[in-house]
Amino acid sequence: MTAFSWTLDARDGNARAGTFTTPHGKLSTPVFAPVGTQATVKSLTPAQVEELGAQMVLANTYHLFLRPGEELVAGLGGLHNFMRWNKPILTDSGGFQVFSLTQTRKIDEDGVSFKSHIDGSIKRLSPETSIQVQEKLGADIIMAFDECAVPTDYDYSRLAMRRTHAWARRCLEAKTRGDQALFGIVQGGVFSDLRAESAREISAMGFPGHAIGGLSVGESKADMYRTIAEVNSILPEDKPRYLMGVGTPEDLIEGVRRGVDIFDCVLPTRLARHNSAMTMRGRLNLMNASFARDERPIDSGCGCYTCQQFSRAYLRHLVNAKEMLAATLLSIHNLYTLVHLAETMRAAILESNFEQFARVTLAQLQSKE
Amino acid sequence: MTAFSWTLDARDGNARAGTFTTPHGKLSTPVFAPVGTQATVKSLTPAQVEELGAQMVLANTYHLFLRPGEELVAGLGGLHNFMRWNKPILTDSGGFQVFSLTQTRKIDEDGVSFKSHIDGSIKRLSPETSIQVQEKLGADIIMAFDECAVPTDYDYSRLAMRRTHAWARRCLEAKTRGDQALFGIVQGGVFSDLRAESAREISAMGFPGHAIGGLSVGESKADMYRTIAEVNSILPEDKPRYLMGVGTPEDLIEGVRRGVDIFDCVLPTRLARHNSAMTMRGRLNLMNASFARDERPIDSGCGCYTCQQFSRAYLRHLVNAKEMLAATLLSIHNLYTLVHLAETMRAAILESNFEQFARVTLAQLQSKE
Repeated sequence: MTAFSWTLDARDGNARAGTFTTPHGKLSTPVFAPVGTQATVKSLTPAQVEELGAQMVLANTYHLFLRPGEELVAGLGGLHNFMRWNKPILTDSGGFQVFSLTQTRKIDEDGVSFKSHIDGSIKRLSPETSIQVQEKLGADIIMAFDECAVPTDYDYSRLAMRRTHAWARRCLEAKTRGDQALFGIVQGGVFSDLRAESAREISAMGFPGHAIGGLSVGESKADMYRTIAEVNSILPEDKPRYLMGVGTPEDLIEGVRRGVDIFDCVLPTRLARHNSAMTMRGRLNLMNASFARDERPIDSGCGCYTCQQFSRAYLRHLVNAKEMLAATLLSIHNLYTLVHLAETMRAAILESNFEQFARVTLAQLQSKE
Repeated sequence: MTAFSWTLDARDGNARAGTFTTPHGKLSTPVFAPVGTQATVKSLTPAQVEELGAQMVLANTYHLFLRPGEELVAGLGGLHNFMRWNKPILTDSGGFQVFSLTQTRKIDEDGVSFKSHIDGSIKRLSPETSIQVQEKLGADIIMAFDECAVPTDYDYSRLAMRRTHAWARRCLEAKTRGDQALFGIVQGGVFSDLRAESAREISAMGFPGHAIGGLSVGESKADMYRTIAEVNSILPEDKPRYLMGVGTPEDLIEGVRRGVDIFDCVLPTRLARHNSAMTMRGRLNLMNASFARDERPIDSGCGCYTCQQFSRAYLRHLVNAKEMLAATLLSIHNLYTLVHLAETMRAAILESNFEQFARVTLAQLQSKE
């Protein structure tokens, strides 16, 4: 594991600024990672993803396992070379997607069988095969195969948590590559006792980083923020913490406030494909006729390519005319917004000004233009 | 018309290298202009269009007249500012699209009434309104409102040609702006006598540039090439010549060979959206399973971003997974192929080597890898 190191550059309250060194370069945290589900951040070239400031992208093991298959990606030099992203990549384990197939998957102690959404064939992932697939894909950070339960069902959350712990140990055993950092995942729904048990158990296994799974899947914001705080009070300080699948500006701020270092989410690119722009003053739907002659950029304070160049009127025209460029320009803006927010939080932490920044920014997010 | 000037830099046989100066910069010809129908080259940012080497883009008056409307574009500073393209823009007259609506348009001597493809409302374009719309849009080069007939129907071709001449005079009279170059359009189908009559009449009207319309619409290649040669033997040397809507590598070479300076076509971006790559050795369909593990770029001799970065295997994966990035990367490649071919032809003309280049390149286009 010598390829990886974690340095805590500064603390401000529970907020942390850190540096995670990987074989493909350093991550300055807090960091937001765009999602490139099928080895592409939808509608963007890698050059555009880099230009908007992304330090890392995430790819989904479930999707790449099914298509084009991990052997094919490995034969083409691994994910970095395949998708031409030469900075850090994180792959999830496939667990989250597989467990989302509630009608067509069958869980046993060894793993999960499920029906492919592409051709209906029966496939199987287990802790061992998830690690094998992720080793073939070759990301810098890989994830343990976990079970994500319905967060408000105590008995199922306990069962899933314990299976997650057993599977985490099997993932550690299955791992063969030395140039990938395997992160363990804390589960336990919204239940304080389960989350504490899980944070302790997972922490004890010696992973080089930890993730908080099973949040932002339907529970209340209050439950989510409380759970993050509880888990991070137990996870060791000297390893990075990744809050999986979380990606509104509010949630990034509340997450960093409670000690999270790494975030990812499909939300910015998904909203973009649905004509919606994220801003630090709420969302704009560019389909809205009120923007037809609006010469202003989406956000006059934003430094992204889209806001530097294009009016709301032009974006509204692209949306209205169903032009693909709308998704591209809105994706650039939405991703920049979160990537830049993470950078700004890092600067505030380094200046011991995080709480002030968080209060002002959260208040601003409630306002509307 | 002082904003425009045409310099013939070199001649090699009938092939010409020229420079057309416009208010938004110089065009070095031969030149291929990507089409941005609705004020966007589909799936590409202006930065990507500029990076692939495009000197000019075309936008369609028919589409912009219907949506978002020329008044809205004018209110936002004109097309250049609206779509953020700071180099030359050419708009067509709307004629070609209107006459393509064969079931829902009605022609009279004054103009054409037609049904909008967007909301079914009845709209009208005439020589005067086409010029008014194009003046509001504000392109550098604008086109006379012409009638494009079925090229193999003699009587209709003669009728449409004569109407085109009358309308060309009305366009000249309707024009009020001094910073736009209005090009006249030669019609006459595939009939030598009509084309000669049209070339003489249009040439006599004093336009700063001329276009050959009504080709590549179903006639044979032999008829098309013969017609280009006949028309260009009459059009004056001291003004640029634009072959409308033509865009295969073969047709660019055969056009330049016969004295054409400017080309545009939707083909490269349309093929891209249908998974097809244009190369100087024919087309590749990236859906083809034979590319699944092919590490090579589309064209190992190509200098575009797509070929510099991505394997056929990755592109095939994007196509197979229906990812938008496929259209973007194939559009970059296809447009670069034609833009670069035009540049290469210009260099060959300047070196008095055009015929040799044309023979070798046309032979290569017949070969398959």
